[in-house]
Amino acid sequence: MKNVMTYGTFDLFHYGHLRLLERAKALGDHLTVAVSTDDFNAVKGKKCTYPFEHRARIVAAIRYVDRVIPERNWEQKVDDIKKFNIDVFVIGDDWQGKFDHLREYCEVVYLPRTSNISTTEIKQNVHKEVKRRS
Amino acid sequence: MKNVMTYGTFDLFHYGHLRLLERAKALGDHLTVAVSTDDFNAVKGKKCTYPFEHRARIVAAIRYVDRVIPERNWEQKVDDIKKFNIDVFVIGDDWQGKFDHLREYCEVVYLPRTSNISTTEIKQNVHKEVKRRS
Repeated sequence: MKNVMTYGTFDLFHYGHLRLLERAKALGDHLTVAVSTDDFNAVKGKKCTYPFEHRARIVAAIRYVDRVIPERNWEQKVDDIKKFNIDVFVIGDDWQGKFDHLREYCEVVYLPRTSNISTTEIKQNVHKEVKRRS
Repeated sequence: MKNVMTYGTFDLFHYGHLRLLERAKALGDHLTVAVSTDDFNAVKGKKCTYPFEHRARIVAAIRYVDRVIPERNWEQKVDDIKKFNIDVFVIGDDWQGKFDHLREYCEVVYLPRTSNISTTEIKQNVHKEVKRRS
């Protein structure tokens, strides 16, 4: 049994998120997803449209996902990898090279992001659309 | 085997959508979801942030959903109910009373919407947030 893990915020759940989870699961048999809490997002200077509970429940309802845990800080990754016997750490390639130090504990895979989709761009598009209509 | 069916647009997939799908599935054993196409939304005067393909794939990835079909017009419901041997037609109670004529073909259930969540409100919130930050 190969255990895979990824981390993310998953605000305004979109097709890029889905593709990442699908490809992450395909790298093993069991997928754990750590979803950033609202408090951790505040530390990162991010504000989500959907609260943690909603983001976590949506991710947990995706059929490729076997377990969801909260991501509360930058430092928990090594503990998570040990606790859940993670074989593969997966993350979007916008983080390319940033998690190479985890190679001491497991395989590290950077997956190409789905082009032209990001929560930031989606928010800009929604903003323009509402402005145009009002 | 009890077959359930619902219809919707499912733009900016949110917790209210998830709760509706979860409760719809709980009314039977197999859930078919008809997702509005972009052309049908244009007829309704709606414009989605996510294209049909993305909306349909996200809904199909939700573990409570067994089948996704496109919703292309207002009239297809009776044909769908017959074709898929639907026992229960489910829809949010913002449509209360609007589909009572389908009782000739199957059970009709209006489910209470999750309070304070709708794609329209979410778009307004994103708009205000982007405006505040820019």
